[in-house]
Amino acid sequence: MSRIGIFDSGVGGLTVHRAILDALPSADTIYLGDTARVPYGTKSAETVTQYSLRNARVLARRGIDFLVVACNTASAVALPALRAELAVPVLGVVEPGARVAARASRTGRIGVIGTQGTVSSGAYQSAIRRAREGAEVIARACPLFVPLAEEGWTDPGDAIVRGVVARYLAPLRGAGIDTLVLGCTHYPLLKAAIALEVPGVVLVDSAEAIAAEVRERLGDAPGGAGRHDFLVTDVPEKFLAVAGRFLGRAVTSAEHVDV
Amino acid sequence: MSRIGIFDSGVGGLTVHRAILDALPSADTIYLGDTARVPYGTKSAETVTQYSLRNARVLARRGIDFLVVACNTASAVALPALRAELAVPVLGVVEPGARVAARASRTGRIGVIGTQGTVSSGAYQSAIRRAREGAEVIARACPLFVPLAEEGWTDPGDAIVRGVVARYLAPLRGAGIDTLVLGCTHYPLLKAAIALEVPGVVLVDSAEAIAAEVRERLGDAPGGAGRHDFLVTDVPEKFLAVAGRFLGRAVTSAEHVDV
Repeated sequence: MSRIGIFDSGVGGLTVHRAILDALPSADTIYLGDTARVPYGTKSAETVTQYSLRNARVLARRGIDFLVVACNTASAVALPALRAELAVPVLGVVEPGARVAARASRTGRIGVIGTQGTVSSGAYQSAIRRAREGAEVIARACPLFVPLAEEGWTDPGDAIVRGVVARYLAPLRGAGIDTLVLGCTHYPLLKAAIALEVPGVVLVDSAEAIAAEVRERLGDAPGGAGRHDFLVTDVPEKFLAVAGRFLGRAVTSAEHVDV
Repeated sequence: MSRIGIFDSGVGGLTVHRAILDALPSADTIYLGDTARVPYGTKSAETVTQYSLRNARVLARRGIDFLVVACNTASAVALPALRAELAVPVLGVVEPGARVAARASRTGRIGVIGTQGTVSSGAYQSAIRRAREGAEVIARACPLFVPLAEEGWTDPGDAIVRGVVARYLAPLRGAGIDTLVLGCTHYPLLKAAIALEVPGVVLVDSAEAIAAEVRERLGDAPGGAGRHDFLVTDVPEKFLAVAGRFLGRAVTSAEHVDV
C-alpha cells in the first residue's frame, strides 16, 4: 500500500491530483497547496527550490512513499534538490509531458507555454530535446493565463480571452508547431480557447502525462483505501471554495500548516 | 533627522516611495519589497498580517522613525497589529486615500478598485464613510489589473486593455460615481485607460495622498542625506530590472533578506 504525496503552489495542482485519481482510483493521497506563497511562476529558482523543500519535508513527516511535484515551475527548477534530500521517489510533471509531446509530434516542431519561471528554466526545452533528437522547441511565457483562469474568464467566445490567447500564441503559430505542451496546471482550463487559436495542433496536458507515469511506476493497483488529505499554508476557506472545481469531486476539509 | 521605513508586497510600493521622495527630496528611506511572497491581494487577512509583521520587524531592526505601509492590502488588514507591536508611528495608504476621495467628491458616490483582499476587508468603504457621512461607496476587485500592469499591457489603445478595464468598471460607471480611488499601487500604471472608461470622474491615487500626509507629519524638511536602501525577499535581480520604472530614478543595488 502506497501513499502518494503531491504538492503545488496552490490549487492548480489539483488537476494533476484528479488525473492521478482517474488513473488510480483507490490510491491514498496527501496534497499540500502552498496557498500562502502562491504563485511560484514569477519567482526565482532559488526561492521556488526553498519553498519546494519545505513543502516536501511537511509531506515526508506525514508519511509518503512517493512524491509528485504537480507544479510545473517547481518541477522545472527544484527536482535535483528534492531528489537529493528525500528518501522516496520524486516525479515532476515536466519529464512526462515532454516525452508525450516528443512522441505526439510529427514534424518535431513543438511549442511549450508556461510561467516565466518554467520557460526561463529551459527544463521543458531540454527534456523535449533529450526525448527527441533534433526537435525544435518554441517556448513562451503566458503570465495572464493564470489570472484569467482564476477569474473564470475562459470562454473561447469571450473577446478578451480570445485576444489574450491570440497574442501569446501568435509566435508559436507563426513558427508552425504541430504539438503544444500546456506547461502549467491552470492552462487546461483555457484548452478550448487555445485549441481555437492553433487548430490542428495536438495539445499535451502534463497532468495526464504524469498520471500515466505514476500508474506505470506503482502498478494498476497500489492498494489504499481512497483516503485523501489536504494541507494548505493560507487559511483553508478559499481553498475549499474552489478545490472541488479543480479536483472534480467534493473537498470538505483542509488543514492549515505553517511551512 | 528621520529615516522612513516603507514596505510593500513587491515593487508596486515604489510608486508610493516615489511620491514620498517628490514631497520630501532629502528624506532617508529604507524600502522592503516582499518579492518572495508577492502578491498579498489574493491572500487571507491572517497571512497578510503575519507577513506585514515580519516585514516591519526587519525594518525596525535596521532603525526607522516612521513606517509607511505602501501596500493597500496590508494597509487594509494589518494596521492594528502593526501599531500594537511597533514603537514608531505607522501610516497606511487607505486612510489618506479615503480622505482625499471624500473631499474630492461632489455627489458622495465614490468608487474604489483594488485587490480582492483590499475590497473584502471593507477598509476603504468604512474609511470613506467615516470621512464623509452618507457617502455611497461602490467597491470592486480587479484581479487582472496587476498582471496587465506587470506585463506592460497598459496602452489605452490596446483592445485587450480597454476590454478588461471596461468589464471591471461597468458597474461603477453604471452607479454614477464621480470619484474613483485607485486602491492598489499598480493601478496608476493603467490610469490613462481607466480615465477613458470613466470620463469626468476624479481619479484618486493613494500614493500621492499618503505622500502629502507623510510630509504633514514630518514637516517640509525632515533632514536626512537622501540615502535610500532597498531590501527584497526574493533574489534582487528581477527587482533591480524593474525598480527604476516604478521609482522614476535608478536603483542600482538591493539586499536580499530572509524574513
